[in-house]
Amino acid sequence: MKQIPNKVYLNESDLPKQWYNIVADMKTKPSPYFSAKTGKVVSASDLEAIFPKSIIEQETCTDRYVDIPEPIMDMYRMMRPSPLCRAYRLEKALGTPAKIYYKYEGNNPSGSHKLNSAIPQAYFNMRDGIKRLTTETGAGQWGTALSVAATYYGLECTVYMVKVSARQKAYRRMIMEAYGANLIESPSELTEAGRKILKENPDNMGSLGIAISEAVEDAAGRADTNYALGSVMNHVCMHQTIIGQEAIKQFEMIDDYPDIVVACCGGGSNFSGTAFPFIRENLKGGKNTRIIAVEPSACPTMTKGKFAYDYGDVAGMTPICKMFTLGHDFMPPGIHAGGLRYHGMAPLVSQLYADGCFEATSAVQSDVFKAGLLFAKNEIIVPAPESCHAICGAIKEAEKCKETGEEKTILFTLSGNGYFDMLAYDKYLHGQTEDIAYDEKLIEQSLAKLPKIEM
Amino acid sequence: MKQIPNKVYLNESDLPKQWYNIVADMKTKPSPYFSAKTGKVVSASDLEAIFPKSIIEQETCTDRYVDIPEPIMDMYRMMRPSPLCRAYRLEKALGTPAKIYYKYEGNNPSGSHKLNSAIPQAYFNMRDGIKRLTTETGAGQWGTALSVAATYYGLECTVYMVKVSARQKAYRRMIMEAYGANLIESPSELTEAGRKILKENPDNMGSLGIAISEAVEDAAGRADTNYALGSVMNHVCMHQTIIGQEAIKQFEMIDDYPDIVVACCGGGSNFSGTAFPFIRENLKGGKNTRIIAVEPSACPTMTKGKFAYDYGDVAGMTPICKMFTLGHDFMPPGIHAGGLRYHGMAPLVSQLYADGCFEATSAVQSDVFKAGLLFAKNEIIVPAPESCHAICGAIKEAEKCKETGEEKTILFTLSGNGYFDMLAYDKYLHGQTEDIAYDEKLIEQSLAKLPKIEM
Repeated sequence: MKQIPNKVYLNESDLPKQWYNIVADMKTKPSPYFSAKTGKVVSASDLEAIFPKSIIEQETCTDRYVDIPEPIMDMYRMMRPSPLCRAYRLEKALGTPAKIYYKYEGNNPSGSHKLNSAIPQAYFNMRDGIKRLTTETGAGQWGTALSVAATYYGLECTVYMVKVSARQKAYRRMIMEAYGANLIESPSELTEAGRKILKENPDNMGSLGIAISEAVEDAAGRADTNYALGSVMNHVCMHQTIIGQEAIKQFEMIDDYPDIVVACCGGGSNFSGTAFPFIRENLKGGKNTRIIAVEPSACPTMTKGKFAYDYGDVAGMTPICKMFTLGHDFMPPGIHAGGLRYHGMAPLVSQLYADGCFEATSAVQSDVFKAGLLFAKNEIIVPAPESCHAICGAIKEAEKCKETGEEKTILFTLSGNGYFDMLAYDKYLHGQTEDIAYDEKLIEQSLAKLPKIEM
Repeated sequence: MKQIPNKVYLNESDLPKQWYNIVADMKTKPSPYFSAKTGKVVSASDLEAIFPKSIIEQETCTDRYVDIPEPIMDMYRMMRPSPLCRAYRLEKALGTPAKIYYKYEGNNPSGSHKLNSAIPQAYFNMRDGIKRLTTETGAGQWGTALSVAATYYGLECTVYMVKVSARQKAYRRMIMEAYGANLIESPSELTEAGRKILKENPDNMGSLGIAISEAVEDAAGRADTNYALGSVMNHVCMHQTIIGQEAIKQFEMIDDYPDIVVACCGGGSNFSGTAFPFIRENLKGGKNTRIIAVEPSACPTMTKGKFAYDYGDVAGMTPICKMFTLGHDFMPPGIHAGGLRYHGMAPLVSQLYADGCFEATSAVQSDVFKAGLLFAKNEIIVPAPESCHAICGAIKEAEKCKETGEEKTILFTLSGNGYFDMLAYDKYLHGQTEDIAYDEKLIEQSLAKLPKIEM
């Protein structure tokens, strides 16, 4: 039998040169965004206050493939392809006949898959004449990625970081500053939204919802400044599809193809990037891969939420979109996987879930960290808490294979490394991790406040 | 002109299968170790209290190549080859005609080159029946690497971490614990050495010298336990030669060869690994690569020290060896590049320097961090403070090429990433980094206390 290498690399010349836009292949097309102010469908010009034209075009694009401009390929080549790794040691530790592979997206300088979309967002803004980007960050993966991409394309970058995160995760703040970003603890005195909140409560430690409001207000108020979002929107999901496209090519190189694909799911960017190219193959016919999204039990957007129109942010400042949601009012408990603490789900992911294109499941924190440490000790990478959800899902499937004796091929995406999340591991190792579940009643209350949209 | 890719990878099947032992090619063979107690040459059996036989054999081996056992290759394949990267953006930022390459050793889960030796040291101890390893760590790269390798081969691992570092660098402590290591703040109550120091001063915040004493005492006192060292000794330098051997193969793939090779130099492990294979080519004839070791100005072992017999540790517990030294009593100022704060230099590196096989130079902290940030903003990797010394040296050479118009090929080793060193960057960015120079008088005093050895 031919030995499959531990890591499969593509040649740089074989990198995907187009993003895959799943809208072209969707049975049910995604619903449009509605304006919170007018109740009407959001037009391109409504978005121009904070997004560049080329990004807005991508947001509503229906072409199956979108070319990746060469200056973006230049930067992609610095951090891609990401390796497809065979988890030989994890397989052995589990005693499973399954073949477990992981696509390692933490192997770039920003430490996560977020850079895949930060690069094109920074590039298109730069090309369209923008000098400065604003964004928000909680866990810090997105803020780090945008800082890296902004400095590469010569843009200023202001990151509104949730105050409590900035204080707890000082290293995250520091790495963004090392890449030249301007870090603002949110709520701040720099925006009306921030000032209003601080006036009510000077000790407010911030939330992602508030940080979004500040970043959007900042961008809307300056002609040279735009806003960049790290998940949820169609263009972000599309940028991430290089993950799955690369993986398919890498499986071709070793003459295999996954029976099961697993990814963690918060706002949907990493899941989209991993799963969409495999959903495409399923929709084409000929392939029948099981695709599994893993959510945190504390924030079970697809497994316990409702497919409905809702705001993207807590304050109700963003457009309204149709998605799986726990209600924009829902405040997820403070689990360590900060990147998965979002009340909604990317509209594209939501529609595909509603159409039965994949399965969704959820996991509690203690199982998630247990899986993450088993992985760390065998595959010698400490994974991000978000990515531990995918590991947990993959291990469950591998254990099923052990029971049935099936030699299934399982792929999961290891979306980021955990170097900046050591506090979370420290708490887990010292018995301080709670299995916080969602609160049925809170979700019910929150879902009762969904906006009314006339179709 | 053929486009050279950003990153050159070797196939796993092309990984070097032997370590290179430069002793075979040295004009002047290294001097033996002397016992501090007896004044006589240290015998193999003297070392058996803390090292396994296979490591002791390697320490005194004179064969040119030593086979790498297959179980070690298995783990090497999980984290190697490391990429050879072309620094296109840095070249452009400098406006130099030079071609700058870097061998990126921070691209493995432990974040530095230290894993290259941690793997064989853990393996040989496991194979020779040892159940538990002890070591010391300051900056934390070595402690992390040994934790990773120990967990892989099923060994317990106790790391004596300098107390002040353990408190300042909490994330380092946490990642070692996540890999299953037992972290002890040194000085501790667990050893005689530690107790003695704490009795004198309960507030003693520790030093690398004290931590070595504790780790050695712990290992010497238990039959199931050995000690592992991350630098200085011959076997460690040999293990690291996979860096340079890979680099030579990678240069063959792109039909180039370095005119200049640069590496930072503290105890000598990363420098040895990078430089020895290139020194071999120079000694063979036909090649004439300039090889440059970069030290911190605050701890200028080769550039200001003496080639003499000295102890490896502060307390004078280790054997005496002939090396460049600032005196075992010399306490380097608290620069951020903790991995380069060592009073001595690997005996092999020292002898080769004495024989004129390479050049040594030094750099001050502000230049080092300036170089590191220029690199980070262009090559999007935040380097470890130690590695910034190599970057600084490479940039100086590239700037010379700009003056002369020469298109030289420069290679440096980026020995580690700086994810766990963000505090150092934060201080630099906030103007809190001092250019601490060595103190001539202190060195003089320290050198006056060298042990006397009868040859």
